[in-house]
Amino acid sequence: MEATVSDSTVVPTAHDDVISWDYQADVVIAGYGVAGASAAVEAARAGADVLVLERSGGWGGAAAMAGGFIYLGGGTALQRACGFEDTVDNMKTFMKAAFGPGTDDEKIDAYCEGSVAHYDWLVEAGVPFREAFYGEPGWEPRGDEGLMYSGGENAAPFKDLVAPAPRGHLPQMENKKTGERGGGYMLMKPLVETAESLGVRAEYDIRVESLVVDGDGRVTGIIAKRYGSRLAVRARRGVVLAMGSFAFDEEMVREHVPHLLGRPGSAIEAHDGRAIRMCQALGAATTHMNAAEVALHVDMQLVARGILVNSSGQRFATEDTYGGILGQEVLFRQGNSAFLVMDENGYESAVATRSVMARPQPTWVSESHAELENSMGLPPYALTTTIDFYNRHALTGSDPAFGKKPEWVRPLEGPLAVFDLRNSTSGFPLGGVKTTVDSEVLHVSGEPIAGLFAAGRCTSGICSGGYASGASLGDGSFFGRRAGISAAANETPAV
Amino acid sequence: MEATVSDSTVVPTAHDDVISWDYQADVVIAGYGVAGASAAVEAARAGADVLVLERSGGWGGAAAMAGGFIYLGGGTALQRACGFEDTVDNMKTFMKAAFGPGTDDEKIDAYCEGSVAHYDWLVEAGVPFREAFYGEPGWEPRGDEGLMYSGGENAAPFKDLVAPAPRGHLPQMENKKTGERGGGYMLMKPLVETAESLGVRAEYDIRVESLVVDGDGRVTGIIAKRYGSRLAVRARRGVVLAMGSFAFDEEMVREHVPHLLGRPGSAIEAHDGRAIRMCQALGAATTHMNAAEVALHVDMQLVARGILVNSSGQRFATEDTYGGILGQEVLFRQGNSAFLVMDENGYESAVATRSVMARPQPTWVSESHAELENSMGLPPYALTTTIDFYNRHALTGSDPAFGKKPEWVRPLEGPLAVFDLRNSTSGFPLGGVKTTVDSEVLHVSGEPIAGLFAAGRCTSGICSGGYASGASLGDGSFFGRRAGISAAANETPAV
Repeated sequence: MEATVSDSTVVPTAHDDVISWDYQADVVIAGYGVAGASAAVEAARAGADVLVLERSGGWGGAAAMAGGFIYLGGGTALQRACGFEDTVDNMKTFMKAAFGPGTDDEKIDAYCEGSVAHYDWLVEAGVPFREAFYGEPGWEPRGDEGLMYSGGENAAPFKDLVAPAPRGHLPQMENKKTGERGGGYMLMKPLVETAESLGVRAEYDIRVESLVVDGDGRVTGIIAKRYGSRLAVRARRGVVLAMGSFAFDEEMVREHVPHLLGRPGSAIEAHDGRAIRMCQALGAATTHMNAAEVALHVDMQLVARGILVNSSGQRFATEDTYGGILGQEVLFRQGNSAFLVMDENGYESAVATRSVMARPQPTWVSESHAELENSMGLPPYALTTTIDFYNRHALTGSDPAFGKKPEWVRPLEGPLAVFDLRNSTSGFPLGGVKTTVDSEVLHVSGEPIAGLFAAGRCTSGICSGGYASGASLGDGSFFGRRAGISAAANETPAV
Repeated sequence: MEATVSDSTVVPTAHDDVISWDYQADVVIAGYGVAGASAAVEAARAGADVLVLERSGGWGGAAAMAGGFIYLGGGTALQRACGFEDTVDNMKTFMKAAFGPGTDDEKIDAYCEGSVAHYDWLVEAGVPFREAFYGEPGWEPRGDEGLMYSGGENAAPFKDLVAPAPRGHLPQMENKKTGERGGGYMLMKPLVETAESLGVRAEYDIRVESLVVDGDGRVTGIIAKRYGSRLAVRARRGVVLAMGSFAFDEEMVREHVPHLLGRPGSAIEAHDGRAIRMCQALGAATTHMNAAEVALHVDMQLVARGILVNSSGQRFATEDTYGGILGQEVLFRQGNSAFLVMDENGYESAVATRSVMARPQPTWVSESHAELENSMGLPPYALTTTIDFYNRHALTGSDPAFGKKPEWVRPLEGPLAVFDLRNSTSGFPLGGVKTTVDSEVLHVSGEPIAGLFAAGRCTSGICSGGYASGASLGDGSFFGRRAGISAAANETPAV
């Protein structure tokens, strides 16, 4: 295709207007992160000739830089090896309660029913997991343990709803100190190697711009750009979009999840929402565009031992839960404002675990509540009121207000240390294109768009509101595989 | 057009596939509520031949059933007649602070700058306003006063941000007792009469289904259905969609604002989101689909005199603010759970205003906090803790936690009455198609879709998060006018 047009648009190109194809394959996959790699493996195994187009200079996407959690359960080999019982039903119940409101229950059902097999598939592809459980509070294990609670399953209110099981499955990292082979890298490397061994081709430094559509509305290819030259890529069976979220498209963030403006996290610049807009240009439906993963930047070993209060000095959540639940709470419901209040005993006990990386310095320390209230901008007596109420129940080891587990409940005494956690959140959007359980992209009419498939964070997956660590690599890999299978099986009429 | 197809789809029809046109006009408007009527008036004044297609048997839409508030300011004749100063800048500042996050500031600027003239336009069209101010808390005036605070402008935190001015402009109702000529009706009747006087035609019982598009992507008409027969309607200059929100499309509500599931309010069944999906089928962008107006169903005269607490027994807002702010807070941030706690003095004082319609019966009454905590499902001492803290400051007439105005702050004493406000919310979505300040529908590419205009609640207007009573009739009428002007001015190439 000649390289003439200068500005890039998401408006589709008519198939008949493409003069020549620069590349051709049965299945063309845009994006070589976890969803793209999983799609590539399955499409190739189904006998398709597969080409992956990647915007950057190498494979990996956001996945390779991530901690690497994959949310799995229902009794995986790793869960069983670590001595945990889990069932598909319990996993479904938890996910529908914790990942909503508005979950795609059909998608969650499929995900849970296929979860044990999906773990085995990852292991078979060469992803390493160490059979060890890490039971401390935290965003990640201290070492290279393979299993951890990553969604608040063992905290109120979920622990009383359904039997808890840890479902954060973490590939075993190598050389943790340099960070060069973290869990995400150790997930991606074997997947890409598997794809390569199956003959999957990849072209790098290619920016996907728009889709090619024939007269019947069927997607037949992709228009892309490399070093300023425009390319046309023919997909004989189907196109799979796996290009990540819209975390770095400021306009889309403003329009769909404005709380996240200026605080993208766990995302890469390539996450520009383009895949979503390319699909929308064909009439695709989007869903839960306001949902977001939100991290609260503080060590969870500290948090579990203190109390979190908002800008009115009130507690608002159980401090022993998953940090992403606290992050969402702080950003969406507490005005992005929080303070962590600890006493000396709690602080020293957290530091003594040695999983607190440094010895974090509190913002304020004082024996005087009045002085702290003044520093924190709280009304007089607000902190005293909260602590008196908390301590009154803590004396008996209970937290009837938020249900913190007795092991973390202790009266706060003596001088207090306060960490200022205002503006301490970041995250990425969870919404995107609406897809079927077979990863077909749905038109707003309710029908799939022929030849178009998508997976990963450019789609709405198993989370519509809440989140657990591992949900994105989880649904990206799970529904990425299905996208590859569906695209490879797609009937190809002569054009 | 022959009547053959049985199922209705939002997929557009090709212009060349339309065999014959059942109706033709320069400007075709779908929906005869406030946005459609305003568009009709302006399109007709601009010299266009105008046809309105209405789904029900008569004009009015949700507007005719509404209280009738129109959010206006910047120094309208009514504001001045009632002795209030307001400026365009103050109005902008308030709206950007209260209606976000993520407001369309260009839209708000245009709205504020045109607000005084828009009021005059309504008056000139025959909409009656009585020059009287109602200053009590409440959703609507007790009588037929024309002006009221309708967005929390005079409550914390906004009163300290910008000089407050009341901006809820209410058409003077007739025969309030029967409710037959409420403010919304008194707004719609003169607008429709004005349209009719200008030669606007209307066809009723017509369900709009999809758009007609020519080979260049220009919208040239509408496919609709009447009594099972399909119709084609030619729009020589432009189509204006003014078909209301998606409050009654359960699937869309689940996917975009699941908190609203099962609680549609201030909406009509015709609000099925179809206009939004018709636009999306052409690649239109949507925005702020998760935003919603939310009413809390309780008398504001009671609320201002009590304290609202959540399911942990904590206060969460200033009780003297706009009920819609409280409604959003309760539904989105307090688990749709709240209790109103009053003492006898507050209760009797509210009832004595006679604006409390009946003598509402509290759910529980007791002198014992412990008994109430038990009834309300609160932790022991939770209510006592909250009241002690509140009273401590109330003794000096202050509320440093939430900023309630001194006139409403008084210690709670003696026996308490509690109103159970769990599941006491309802509302409608505020998100929709993304439009320009000239009411052009925007494609996800950023370009307007030729020949397609929209206004009212099928678009995202001046609210992206917060709300004030009058914002929907306000932006519906204001940008409805612009839709009519734009459509009438649209160049018409020969097809």
